[in-house]
Amino acid sequence: MQTTAAVRGLSCTACGESADPGVERCPDCGAVLVVDYDADAVESAADCHPFPPEATVSIDEGATPLVAVPDLAAELGVESVAVKDEGRNPTGSLADRGFALAVAAAVERGADRVGTPSTGNGAQSAAAYAARADIESKGFVPSRCPFLNKAMVNVHGGDMHVVEGRYADAVEAFAESDEAFASVAPGHPFRIAGATGLALELLADREWAAPDTVVHPAGHGETVVGLQRGFALAVDAGLADAVPRIYAAQPDACAPIAAAAADGAAEPVPVDHPDTIVGPLEVPDPAAGTAAIDAIDATDGDGVAVPDKEILQAAVDGCELGPEIGATGGTAVAGVRALADRDAFASDDEVVLVNPVAGSKEADLLRSHLMSLGM
Amino acid sequence: MQTTAAVRGLSCTACGESADPGVERCPDCGAVLVVDYDADAVESAADCHPFPPEATVSIDEGATPLVAVPDLAAELGVESVAVKDEGRNPTGSLADRGFALAVAAAVERGADRVGTPSTGNGAQSAAAYAARADIESKGFVPSRCPFLNKAMVNVHGGDMHVVEGRYADAVEAFAESDEAFASVAPGHPFRIAGATGLALELLADREWAAPDTVVHPAGHGETVVGLQRGFALAVDAGLADAVPRIYAAQPDACAPIAAAAADGAAEPVPVDHPDTIVGPLEVPDPAAGTAAIDAIDATDGDGVAVPDKEILQAAVDGCELGPEIGATGGTAVAGVRALADRDAFASDDEVVLVNPVAGSKEADLLRSHLMSLGM
Repeated sequence: MQTTAAVRGLSCTACGESADPGVERCPDCGAVLVVDYDADAVESAADCHPFPPEATVSIDEGATPLVAVPDLAAELGVESVAVKDEGRNPTGSLADRGFALAVAAAVERGADRVGTPSTGNGAQSAAAYAARADIESKGFVPSRCPFLNKAMVNVHGGDMHVVEGRYADAVEAFAESDEAFASVAPGHPFRIAGATGLALELLADREWAAPDTVVHPAGHGETVVGLQRGFALAVDAGLADAVPRIYAAQPDACAPIAAAAADGAAEPVPVDHPDTIVGPLEVPDPAAGTAAIDAIDATDGDGVAVPDKEILQAAVDGCELGPEIGATGGTAVAGVRALADRDAFASDDEVVLVNPVAGSKEADLLRSHLMSLGM
Repeated sequence: MQTTAAVRGLSCTACGESADPGVERCPDCGAVLVVDYDADAVESAADCHPFPPEATVSIDEGATPLVAVPDLAAELGVESVAVKDEGRNPTGSLADRGFALAVAAAVERGADRVGTPSTGNGAQSAAAYAARADIESKGFVPSRCPFLNKAMVNVHGGDMHVVEGRYADAVEAFAESDEAFASVAPGHPFRIAGATGLALELLADREWAAPDTVVHPAGHGETVVGLQRGFALAVDAGLADAVPRIYAAQPDACAPIAAAAADGAAEPVPVDHPDTIVGPLEVPDPAAGTAAIDAIDATDGDGVAVPDKEILQAAVDGCELGPEIGATGGTAVAGVRALADRDAFASDDEVVLVNPVAGSKEADLLRSHLMSLGM
């Protein structure tokens, strides 16, 4: 596989073994792989793009704004709060950074079809990038997947299997499928690499001054892993001088990563009966969960679990103070409030929240919350 | 009102009279006003921002990508096609550029509440920017306004009057309202100035090489006017060497600007019974219609009216080739196809399409088109 000079290969997050960029999991131990970068070859955020121009698949993802939210900083009693608005990606979610790379990797390996299970946004993004690369895609989504995601998968010409039940059922249908496709499922090393790009871009937005804290609403934990790798890479490359603490925020009704991190456990415990209104985060058995907990620990971060009701209120409050966020992004706002309540921050802390999904994509959830308040 | 050095004041698009930045229409003749810039003070796209930092209201609008769509260029037989993806603004529409400025102007004048009629996206944007400025807002929307827009107006804490009927009824309710608010209605000079910023940014994206043609889906014609002013300003400022031809694309069931431009008429004829699936463009009596026709003529451009069915198919095709676009953006794709059919382009033409609204915001329209095709 053709990669840039910055890429040395893949390495395993569990056993450290090296692997070829063409594989999906560690051939030795089966754990999640990440891209292993040569820090000496990284002098800017763009340098961590793993593929040369001729092998790139892009709809101009990234370059999202870091929006200052001073009213939230005042409420929390910290120096600054900014939202990295990943809703402003091509299909309205952070997933685009990962699928741009994972689809490019699949094309490089000669695939003419990619497949993934998804709570919704991933299937939409996979279909968009596959269409852009002129290959086919197949998404496995649960019946509760939002209409918007299902509609846009079809609009992009993607194939879709709507699996009766919840996300775990979609994962099972994906695993049991005998259809031919290259897997771009959660935990894919190049999906994680999308978040490494996010980390470097976020630092570049701040002229390489690392924030003290990043709060991210976690699902599979891919972004948590990629962020930590990116921050560490920036330090190794001499671009930044510190790695921010990473906090994984999750709905308390489905918080396998946040609960394990908070308990000091090494691995997430799969959630038997997940039931949160925040569909994109209803991931009971996260693909990169163990690696995410390691990443959180490496940054001296933590997990924070918050109730759905606080998440929805935080989303609405967030929309009044800063950029549009939905229930998914509201999980970061509710999380940062819970962290402030337990005195996790100093008064001079600079805090970045990641908004993974455009607020407009989750308008129905926010409106029904207002309805429940009689508004 | 506090403005930057680049702003000389306002001038009337009809009689040329100067006006104070605080007024909404020409005090002499009642026509639409535009910001009058001092070209000598404009050395970059940022220089045309009319307000100094302390008077700016922003959620980091703009800085949207110009996405190359080579497959569409090949289909049309032109040198290049790129989509300026305005769906990647804070609330998912081009309206954000205008409301950032119009709300800032209202705040500068001491307003604590703004009001506007809207087909939907404008009300959402107005509510978002009013919330960001910590003032109130009131949107007048027709009952056919999409749920998503109505929901997000409420989420931003905006007040809303859902007027039974179509857009013209919302305009009437707005005009008859005796509530106190500063008007940020269509045709507002600072809403038009938002599109002037778009023109300069688009040129900067291309390193100041003007494209041959820009195709824009027109509603009120504000963006057409602002684009032409911006391109002309860039030439006056010595930044660019040509003004692109501007084509206004509209659904044929509601094409007051496109029809008048195509007929060589000086003014749009209001449409008695508008009926298009493209809600944001169902504007039967455009506020900046006459000025838009003048702007089109000044660039040697034209109007192009296209049927809803072609618009929806063009939107779906667009989503397979480039960034996500909805029915509104699909109007530009259908328009550029119709223009190519009538040999409007040379083989070395560089064409830019404006996508005014995020595709995800109009997923339902695109999905029902697929349904009508039995998909």
